Amino acid sequence: MSDSKRVKRPQLHLTAFMRPVSLHTGAWRYPGAYPDANFNFNHIKSFIQKLEAAKFDAFFMADHLAVLNMPVEALKRSHTVTSFEPFTLLSALSVVTEKIGLAATASTTYDEPYHIARRFASLDHLSNGRAAWNIVTTGNPESAKNFGLEDHVEHSSRYKRAREFYDVVTGLWDSFADDAFIWDQESGVYFDPEKMHVLNHKGDDLKVKGPLNIARPVQGWPVIVQAGQSDPGRQLAAETAEAVFCSPRDLEAAKALYADIKGRAIAVGRDPNHLKILPAAFIVVGDSFEDAQAKRLKLDSLVHYDSAIASLSIALGTDASKYDPDGPLPTDIPETNASKTSQASVIRLAAKEKLTVRQLAQRLGGYSGLAFVGTPESIADEMGTWLAEEGADGFTIALPFLPQGLDDVADRLVPELQRRGLFRKEYEGTTLREHLGLPRPKNRFFE
Amino acid sequence: MSDSKRVKRPQLHLTAFMRPVSLHTGAWRYPGAYPDANFNFNHIKSFIQKLEAAKFDAFFMADHLAVLNMPVEALKRSHTVTSFEPFTLLSALSVVTEKIGLAATASTTYDEPYHIARRFASLDHLSNGRAAWNIVTTGNPESAKNFGLEDHVEHSSRYKRAREFYDVVTGLWDSFADDAFIWDQESGVYFDPEKMHVLNHKGDDLKVKGPLNIARPVQGWPVIVQAGQSDPGRQLAAETAEAVFCSPRDLEAAKALYADIKGRAIAVGRDPNHLKILPAAFIVVGDSFEDAQAKRLKLDSLVHYDSAIASLSIALGTDASKYDPDGPLPTDIPETNASKTSQASVIRLAAKEKLTVRQLAQRLGGYSGLAFVGTPESIADEMGTWLAEEGADGFTIALPFLPQGLDDVADRLVPELQRRGLFRKEYEGTTLREHLGLPRPKNRFFE
Repeated sequence: MSDSKRVKRPQLHLTAFMRPVSLHTGAWRYPGAYPDANFNFNHIKSFIQKLEAAKFDAFFMADHLAVLNMPVEALKRSHTVTSFEPFTLLSALSVVTEKIGLAATASTTYDEPYHIARRFASLDHLSNGRAAWNIVTTGNPESAKNFGLEDHVEHSSRYKRAREFYDVVTGLWDSFADDAFIWDQESGVYFDPEKMHVLNHKGDDLKVKGPLNIARPVQGWPVIVQAGQSDPGRQLAAETAEAVFCSPRDLEAAKALYADIKGRAIAVGRDPNHLKILPAAFIVVGDSFEDAQAKRLKLDSLVHYDSAIASLSIALGTDASKYDPDGPLPTDIPETNASKTSQASVIRLAAKEKLTVRQLAQRLGGYSGLAFVGTPESIADEMGTWLAEEGADGFTIALPFLPQGLDDVADRLVPELQRRGLFRKEYEGTTLREHLGLPRPKNRFFE
Repeated sequence: MSDSKRVKRPQLHLTAFMRPVSLHTGAWRYPGAYPDANFNFNHIKSFIQKLEAAKFDAFFMADHLAVLNMPVEALKRSHTVTSFEPFTLLSALSVVTEKIGLAATASTTYDEPYHIARRFASLDHLSNGRAAWNIVTTGNPESAKNFGLEDHVEHSSRYKRAREFYDVVTGLWDSFADDAFIWDQESGVYFDPEKMHVLNHKGDDLKVKGPLNIARPVQGWPVIVQAGQSDPGRQLAAETAEAVFCSPRDLEAAKALYADIKGRAIAVGRDPNHLKILPAAFIVVGDSFEDAQAKRLKLDSLVHYDSAIASLSIALGTDASKYDPDGPLPTDIPETNASKTSQASVIRLAAKEKLTVRQLAQRLGGYSGLAFVGTPESIADEMGTWLAEEGADGFTIALPFLPQGLDDVADRLVPELQRRGLFRKEYEGTTLREHLGLPRPKNRFFE
């Protein structure tokens, strides 16, 4: 027995929150960007291989089920609404990677649990245990119209169905015991029918007989991810999620959210360590703070003013196109019936960074969530603080532009995190559950 | 100008009709078989790479949406009901191949046109134009129970919805003109909104707004495949299909089917050359006819008698378990209220091949459709005759066992076909449409 056994210090978990050419709407115009990456597998392959070399926990593909979710003036400039479908893309990427997790978004409102259970199980087998399901309920009303409905499904109905959908999908994953398939060529028995369970689910929203036509996933269940921040969203996460993608605006908000969701998990009898809180963070790395900020302003400047100004008008609750684009934000913004929080935070942002109306609009039209902009050292400081103060168990990183913004993170930020012991230098396991420190779920129907 | 231009002789098209360890229920027990291939990507990868080296047109993954489609005594011995899901598998296979087509089965009864259009478009982009959609209406009543229904959807309702579903899916594929995405980094215009079409479909069974959130597929539309042989199935094929998988029992039946479907296509104004008839054929290659027949009998002998005898009883319309398994089929089979055709053809088969009751049962429990069993030369003769006499434009080959049965076809039969000029020696194009000699569909909304 060695006496060197000691409690491991907590480390960050890092996932990449991807659209093929970044979530930032100006990114496809950034110098060196691949504007065709949405439909160019080789580019996406190079991105994920870079992330795997940097030992990221997972590659997370964001998704939409509709095109028409913005005015045509903005739409025609957007690279974020068209791309590969997640299951087909991630399955292809499973072949060109070995360790990194593969997280796909799938809707509980506009799909069937048998299909969803089957595709994630299949992806988990193909990838030898690297699949994760980001459960979304799809709020965008344009999506409803692509699936036979005139109006979007009401919020509480969506969450009620989502909870039942989760029970059905996980029940289908448990259709076969882990050792059901015996492949005994001599006796001719392919699987043991005593180790197959017929679900026979009959609930309020769903009726599904089962069993699933696929062996139990390598991970038992693919990792469950959730992103909702509403009250029902937090409750669903506390009851079901193993990783939460969230968008707190600062550390104080993150700590409150972290405590709330972990508290809810404890209240339903779960180990809070088995639920990782991973706030989305937009990362811009530079040689100095000024250099990083200049990169960000350059990126923002690539958001076309016509589409940017609409975002600012919505956030302010007043038509911002009447203001001088190159002047400061006027001080006499009228009170709004829309979100006062949103208006106040935009006014604060303009003052803090001394942004012109144009820059402010471009920030909102580009990416306006939590951002770490600075040197590898300063960003590592911030991330370490969030980890130590229980604002985060890691981050869902939004890369500003590709490939350069990814290279900056992988080649500069990650080594700094590793030097400080805040991030792994090598994968220690092979499955996404192992990367995230999550247990393999027991089969509810078999020992 | 050269005077060597001449009309090209027709050649066969060959696709492989796959379950990961063959369609034959005894195949997983055959010497050298990989019984775990259903969930072993590397085995399937080796199969498709072998097929591509043999210049096959396409790899076609058969599919089911339910497990419980046979009694448990047969089910526990069956490798045909559990495997990877087709889209995830074919997407992964697209990365390890370059030319061979990738055909997936997808149901119009238990899925949504937006999802289906999107996944095939995505697979077509990932594979650079190699996707095909096998349209099925899913008759198995067990499938209905996995999708919220108590009973299966009635035949004519399924076909009515399938026809409308096809219109919606192809309409969604035409959402963008081929040149809609201009990626102009300078002006900041990502795509031309004048080249985007909103479908706004409102039909009897489906309401879908569109547009699809993916660029037009590389092939315009993935290749449309159909397998129904009922009257509505043939009509759907004539109106929509570009390749037909069918199961005629002999050349005479094949010629009638070929003439009927091509005639229906002409009647609706289509070029009959743009609809390829590809009967399913089970191929066993040997050094001699006796050697091939011995392989087949050995394979059949691996079908367990308990599950085989049920197939024979059904086909005869009487309990066959009372007969001596090792004797000949008795001559006093009672008349049946079930299918007289089926009973007669089984009695004919037993007499022709001098099969015992056991062998007959195992044939029916294994694979009892059209088979070419013989030497490379004799099989090439048969295939050539079917092509010349317009019974087939090629074949959907069911491999008897893997990997050996595939190696026999790829290394022995294909070279014989090539020597005779009946099959390509090299791929001449890069897309599945080019392999099959099919035109790229025009976009119905744009020039």
